Amino acid sequence: MAHTARRPKFADWLAETNDVTQIFLSAGQIPGLINMAGGLPDPSTWPVADLAALAARAVADHPGETLAYAPIEGLPGLRDRIAARFGAPGLGLTRENVLITTGGMQALDLIGKVLLDRGGLIAAQSPAYLGALDAWKPHYPVYRPMRLDADGFDPVAALGGAQFGYTVPNFSNPTGRLVGVEDRRALVAAAEATGTWLVEDDPYGALYYDGASLPRMLTLSGRGDKVYDGPIVYLGTLSKELAPGFRIGWVVAAPDMIRAMVSAKQGSDMCSSGLSQRIVQDAFASGLTERVLPGVLALYRARRDALCGAMARHLGGLFDWEVPTGGMFVWATGRDPALDTDLLLRVALSHGVCITPSSVFDPEGRNRRAIRINFTLNALETLDEGVRRLAEATRATLARAA
Amino acid sequence: MAHTARRPKFADWLAETNDVTQIFLSAGQIPGLINMAGGLPDPSTWPVADLAALAARAVADHPGETLAYAPIEGLPGLRDRIAARFGAPGLGLTRENVLITTGGMQALDLIGKVLLDRGGLIAAQSPAYLGALDAWKPHYPVYRPMRLDADGFDPVAALGGAQFGYTVPNFSNPTGRLVGVEDRRALVAAAEATGTWLVEDDPYGALYYDGASLPRMLTLSGRGDKVYDGPIVYLGTLSKELAPGFRIGWVVAAPDMIRAMVSAKQGSDMCSSGLSQRIVQDAFASGLTERVLPGVLALYRARRDALCGAMARHLGGLFDWEVPTGGMFVWATGRDPALDTDLLLRVALSHGVCITPSSVFDPEGRNRRAIRINFTLNALETLDEGVRRLAEATRATLARAA
Repeated sequence: MAHTARRPKFADWLAETNDVTQIFLSAGQIPGLINMAGGLPDPSTWPVADLAALAARAVADHPGETLAYAPIEGLPGLRDRIAARFGAPGLGLTRENVLITTGGMQALDLIGKVLLDRGGLIAAQSPAYLGALDAWKPHYPVYRPMRLDADGFDPVAALGGAQFGYTVPNFSNPTGRLVGVEDRRALVAAAEATGTWLVEDDPYGALYYDGASLPRMLTLSGRGDKVYDGPIVYLGTLSKELAPGFRIGWVVAAPDMIRAMVSAKQGSDMCSSGLSQRIVQDAFASGLTERVLPGVLALYRARRDALCGAMARHLGGLFDWEVPTGGMFVWATGRDPALDTDLLLRVALSHGVCITPSSVFDPEGRNRRAIRINFTLNALETLDEGVRRLAEATRATLARAA
Repeated sequence: MAHTARRPKFADWLAETNDVTQIFLSAGQIPGLINMAGGLPDPSTWPVADLAALAARAVADHPGETLAYAPIEGLPGLRDRIAARFGAPGLGLTRENVLITTGGMQALDLIGKVLLDRGGLIAAQSPAYLGALDAWKPHYPVYRPMRLDADGFDPVAALGGAQFGYTVPNFSNPTGRLVGVEDRRALVAAAEATGTWLVEDDPYGALYYDGASLPRMLTLSGRGDKVYDGPIVYLGTLSKELAPGFRIGWVVAAPDMIRAMVSAKQGSDMCSSGLSQRIVQDAFASGLTERVLPGVLALYRARRDALCGAMARHLGGLFDWEVPTGGMFVWATGRDPALDTDLLLRVALSHGVCITPSSVFDPEGRNRRAIRINFTLNALETLDEGVRRLAEATRATLARAA
């Protein structure tokens, strides 16, 4: 059209798109597709009637909190509850340590805004959560990959000079890896020694299927201060333990980091929904989240087992993987170095199954050896059929490469 | 504390804070203060029982929309409704032209993300909305002020070469000014001639107290396309016509602008609350917004009249102003050039009244001649007493300057 001929160009970062996103979007149109690509919860786990009642009461009984602009920092009662939930002996948390965010994603956006001028350095657990890479793109960051399980990994060298470190210690997205206690202690010590902020992104912290929870790095970094002032920036979200539709997440960090993020949030969306915040506060207070969790864990544990059983039956010669002890994903690396998992995605779609290729979790898009498979969304028999299709697609992809 | 000694520095833009924000925050603690500084709606206008019922039904009847991740672009039904609401003969709007945002503020943030690399040029109506200046700070923009009412204002020269123009044609925040139809046409023609995007920020478009609404620049830019592809980026919000607590706003623009903003939104908060979106969709569908509006207009019109009457009684020799025909604010310029309104704010607080000084609406903080007074939040007699205190404070401020 003539009137669009001389439009100003968009910001440069928008040109750096991965076409995998477009492939996922068009995949939604394929009939009968088994989607093992996303990271979605199972809607059957949502306590719909309880939440409908909480929503009505939140508006009727607390219109001043639910219908007005909320404080930028979040509702005081919800901030207090988060402080109480994550506090521990030696870890003094107060309202000043807590910011409520519009989903966990907004916390990543705010961290970028307060810590990254153009080209800032991020020490990121590798491979890294795609959403974090997306959030920071507008700042054109430089990445220093942290391969926590590599021989001779040196946390002080990794964090020194970076604006911040980024880790998902509980069941990393994409690898499902659990970072051990000694590695957590070493990362905390390195953050303290270097001064570098260390982001502990913990969306899956409630989703332990085997054994007890490991201590958070936040907890390990407590030094008996009355008001926590350590280097950990802890991020949590309601999306995985109750429901994503409320868009409620939280940050627990030193007060100066919270204040900086509040300045950034003011110019981002002013405040998070008072209605959502009040519902979440009441869901915590009434014990709803705790009542729901055992059912969620039982369902996802069975699906994890079903997926890994199906993988053992169908993918044994084709991929290597470890059974994750929590979270939502299995990470599988192709045995044959000739397997290009970007190509595998395209072939898999033609076989009626969708997975996520490793390239999207690499800031430089180079890793094409692995795939991420989700197990939380699909029924047991669907998981088996999905893996069977994936095995066919893998053989077809390798045949093309040969 | 020792462990905070060598923290990486925050991004540079965080250092550029105006201490007026801190003054406002501490003002909340002053007993008996009359707050005429903000831009808040009156909570008595909220249809609490209706909204409580809508909230319960949204969750109970549509859990798949309210509790899941929503599409990044927004719920299809709400996007269709916005397209229908703002469409007009010659202005073809479809779902592709609409993005749902987390409040109107997020639209400003997303515009910054998609159009501003560091130091990008913005042609902004001057004085400008403080929240827009806040949203764009992380990009270190350069401002070219547009004084739409200045003699010889040339819209083509103003917009040419800028990444975008920014205007609030209906009852600008802060000045309450209504941009006339001929000026709107000239701005649209200039946007088309230069190719520059022109943001029409319209939070107060429903708040006309005298006479009929003027046509939107969006409508004036329609060219009979089936899918709108013109230069206007129209922003709306539910906050002023129903309630702010849902955090729902919308963008109507050309599909390529919507797609770019969707990419930015994905990395900002993934999606807006499905619960809030479904409530808003149902509030529109049931005619709730239309039923509420007449009462809102009557209340705010009476308060506008009360404020302007009180100003005529108490401030006649001290300030010049025009009676606004809509919106939430009166803009008053000191007659004595010696009046410093940053100083006036401090003195006014000691007299028990709070207003907003002009410096916060100037990207360079230089304008210290005017104040913004809100009339939507306070009762009639409170407005009178607030203006009486303001007159005392102004005389005291002038006495200090003399």
